Amino acid sequence: MLAAVIVTIMLIPQSLAYALLAGLPAEMGLYASILPLIAYALFGTSRTLSVGPVAVVSLMTATAVGKVAQTGSADYMVAAIAMAMISGLMLLVMGILRFGFMANFLSHPVVSGFITASGIIIALSQVRHILGIPGHGDNLPELLLSLSSHLGDSNLVTLLTGAAAMLFLFWARSGLKPLLQRAGLSADAAGMLAKAGPVLVILATTLASFAGDFEGRGVALVGDVPQGLPSLSLPSFDLALWSELAVSAMLISIIGFVESVSVGKTLAAKRRQRINPNQELVALGAANVASAVSAGFPVTGGFSRSIVNFDAGAQTPAASILAAAGIALAALLLTPALFYLPKATLAATIIVAVTSLLDLEVIRRAWDYSISDFIAVVLTIGATLLLGVELGVLAGIVASVLLHLYKTTRPHMAVVGAIAGTEHFRNVERHNVITHPNIVSLRVDESLYFANASYLEDYIYRLIADHEELEHVILQCTAVNEIDMSALEALEAIDHRLREQGIALNLSEVKGPVMDALSKTDFLEHLSGEVFLTHHRAVQHLKRDEIEPYII
Amino acid sequence: MLAAVIVTIMLIPQSLAYALLAGLPAEMGLYASILPLIAYALFGTSRTLSVGPVAVVSLMTATAVGKVAQTGSADYMVAAIAMAMISGLMLLVMGILRFGFMANFLSHPVVSGFITASGIIIALSQVRHILGIPGHGDNLPELLLSLSSHLGDSNLVTLLTGAAAMLFLFWARSGLKPLLQRAGLSADAAGMLAKAGPVLVILATTLASFAGDFEGRGVALVGDVPQGLPSLSLPSFDLALWSELAVSAMLISIIGFVESVSVGKTLAAKRRQRINPNQELVALGAANVASAVSAGFPVTGGFSRSIVNFDAGAQTPAASILAAAGIALAALLLTPALFYLPKATLAATIIVAVTSLLDLEVIRRAWDYSISDFIAVVLTIGATLLLGVELGVLAGIVASVLLHLYKTTRPHMAVVGAIAGTEHFRNVERHNVITHPNIVSLRVDESLYFANASYLEDYIYRLIADHEELEHVILQCTAVNEIDMSALEALEAIDHRLREQGIALNLSEVKGPVMDALSKTDFLEHLSGEVFLTHHRAVQHLKRDEIEPYII
Repeated sequence: MLAAVIVTIMLIPQSLAYALLAGLPAEMGLYASILPLIAYALFGTSRTLSVGPVAVVSLMTATAVGKVAQTGSADYMVAAIAMAMISGLMLLVMGILRFGFMANFLSHPVVSGFITASGIIIALSQVRHILGIPGHGDNLPELLLSLSSHLGDSNLVTLLTGAAAMLFLFWARSGLKPLLQRAGLSADAAGMLAKAGPVLVILATTLASFAGDFEGRGVALVGDVPQGLPSLSLPSFDLALWSELAVSAMLISIIGFVESVSVGKTLAAKRRQRINPNQELVALGAANVASAVSAGFPVTGGFSRSIVNFDAGAQTPAASILAAAGIALAALLLTPALFYLPKATLAATIIVAVTSLLDLEVIRRAWDYSISDFIAVVLTIGATLLLGVELGVLAGIVASVLLHLYKTTRPHMAVVGAIAGTEHFRNVERHNVITHPNIVSLRVDESLYFANASYLEDYIYRLIADHEELEHVILQCTAVNEIDMSALEALEAIDHRLREQGIALNLSEVKGPVMDALSKTDFLEHLSGEVFLTHHRAVQHLKRDEIEPYII
Repeated sequence: MLAAVIVTIMLIPQSLAYALLAGLPAEMGLYASILPLIAYALFGTSRTLSVGPVAVVSLMTATAVGKVAQTGSADYMVAAIAMAMISGLMLLVMGILRFGFMANFLSHPVVSGFITASGIIIALSQVRHILGIPGHGDNLPELLLSLSSHLGDSNLVTLLTGAAAMLFLFWARSGLKPLLQRAGLSADAAGMLAKAGPVLVILATTLASFAGDFEGRGVALVGDVPQGLPSLSLPSFDLALWSELAVSAMLISIIGFVESVSVGKTLAAKRRQRINPNQELVALGAANVASAVSAGFPVTGGFSRSIVNFDAGAQTPAASILAAAGIALAALLLTPALFYLPKATLAATIIVAVTSLLDLEVIRRAWDYSISDFIAVVLTIGATLLLGVELGVLAGIVASVLLHLYKTTRPHMAVVGAIAGTEHFRNVERHNVITHPNIVSLRVDESLYFANASYLEDYIYRLIADHEELEHVILQCTAVNEIDMSALEALEAIDHRLREQGIALNLSEVKGPVMDALSKTDFLEHLSGEVFLTHHRAVQHLKRDEIEPYII
């Protein structure tokens, strides 16, 4: 119950703010925070995840819907609701088909980079509300151009309101809790109350706006918000609209799912609980469908709201159901008071909230760790900033998959020799090892498949050109987890070529599943050499004859 | 010189036939067989590859160009020439950027399946010329529908001509050589002359057509073919047209390159020569540009023509230059004689030629070998037959990459134990091995990267739930060729979780490059366990304390 009250207080400003970010009327933010919470509570596997509008998904909604309708128009609202429906159905289908593994294709650096770049775009997109100027833009150049061209039209009262709200919120993050503690509150209570900073700002600026006639001074206010609960209805099914939104809905679904699952996993791990990704897809799908039928927009599990829920002591999904009831009450009773709320206040809460998403450190960490992670991060951040969120996340996914594939097309291979006194073989270039002139031992550090089959061929042909007395090539297959048909054909070609030159091809330490596959073909019958259980046995046997071979 | 004469005689009917297949006037087939041969001879690394119009690329050209212009119109010709230019430039750029490795993404089963399915479509697309009926279609259903609806309009004389030509050509494959040998020719000479079957058919049906007034009997003839050499000119640069053709040009370039390189490799291997894929890209690019400036259409290295060139004894690219001269002579002198040539004859030569491309056996081989190769082949064949060549080849590429990635997201892992009396560890489920109650040894048979990082986490958490007395988890990293940032974060999470439960995480047999990457982070400092050079040492050390650890 306590968790529900605290989450409700925190969700109200967040819901209003993310509706603004998505370019939608404030009440839709509240609507998206009622039924979706109940739907997730019924189907989700996380006990503490809090579902609703979140920053990145709201931005992606604005970008996608902005392509098919004018911001502020009725069509725009219809498209946003349809987006929640399409995304919800996609998530449901993916969950039923057990496509939870798909989230794995977004690597951690790509997700960090994407969220950081989105945070920058979100913050910049809100600056115009702080300045009280018109403008729009889906990427960094558009936003900067739009801001600079209207800078002269700034409204002073709006700017002062927004700046004051931002300063207070930034200060509240670190300064409010100690102040409340000094005022006699317990550390826990002070920590909770400090989270209500946005509510205080909303109250203060709404009162100031009412008392100081901000409307007359040209400050943009939230204005009329319909009182009451959303009416339930099926979103419009317009095939042309749905197909226009489909690709964006897929991206929103994937990003929403990845964000939600990573939050859910983090929280579950703290209490030794587990979440099931496929069931999470179903639950998020249900939440989005629920959002769509109650005039909301795409939702997902949010980090900050879930953390608050968790810290406030939520133990079961009942906390979310109570929070939904709280928001419903707010929609019934509080909406008239929102008339005087300046949009600049909401923009300030968004800007302060997204600064916690920024993690530019990830670029340095990736640079230190590996060049391909670095390329993926920089590409994702660059593409998101310059081309917008949709192309940004696509660039990130495609770049990580291609970089991974590219690496496997040129696998690491090492000529190995025995470490004296052991049965172990190591790279001749890194260790002081024993080799034999009539044998080349080659360890292939990758599965053999179509993408690297011809590289292996070329590598071995170059290798044998360098060895005069060669009689045996032994492939140490410890790291070969698969040999597909293309690679098998390459091995047959290699065997044939080596045999012509009087060299035998041998294999060692072939794994069970690979051996099973090879046994189904006639490759082993025709192989010029043999297959050895261990590389040590292979070398002992091929180097001199007195040791009995230990062949599988 | 001999090779050049034989290749010339064989190329003339082939060039005319593939121009028909591409929906282009016969002379364009000849034009595409002059300058491209010279360009390839200058830049290529294969000494015997013969470049010109080939079946699959001609079909792909017809499909692509058919989407932007009406077959037979002037625009259609312009687009086909532009296609050669775009494809040539793409190949040149890919060669300069050293993108030869790209060909690796087409696995052997996918290529076999694609060529087989294309062969079926090509053969079916020519049946209408044999029947003398109108019709068109880019895929199996369209072709069958088109054929069945016009079947009643068949022209008897056309049908007889086409059927006779087909029967003779099928017979000539196996029956002509023995007959010529019995007539007193040497085996070599008889084999060469038997390859001239298509020329004999063309001569015979042209004479019959002239003598029997086939034109008056409603037989479609090749008709007027301009005499002389092509005039050189730059193809039209129309940005709208070029961007419409770009995707198709990319597919044609890739398929053409893969086909050409596989032919080139096969021939080079027979004489212990090597070809360089990147230089091949440049050479094929130059050949296509040469085709475009001389009013030809897309070309590549063909299998049958190159085999003939090779068998006829071509040793150097000079054979190709002489063949180009031969075709140029034919264009200058022989074209008036082509007026009476029935199109049905050319269709018959195409049908007989493509039957040698069909390899439906590949489906069974893939089924026997592995389920993922099977899925890739069936998808490629199915998509090519039902959706056409472009979507077919795309489906094949995407399916093989996704199947490969899917496999790596659920890597094979094995709990291992020591084989008595050795230092070797094997799967506990496959071998009779020694294990210890306080240790779980887990061999991970895949590189650890973003796509399988969370699978590893889940696997280890399930594993430790099953072991009560556990003190140590040892990851045997023999098959781990890479640990990327996402996987490193997963390992950190695993280490943290295990430590909370009083279990240490140890690594063994970590490879040099992986160790280098890990050393750059603070992972090894914080690791609850240790890193061991061999798994044997790790188990000996962690099982009892008297043995000195042998830690890297």
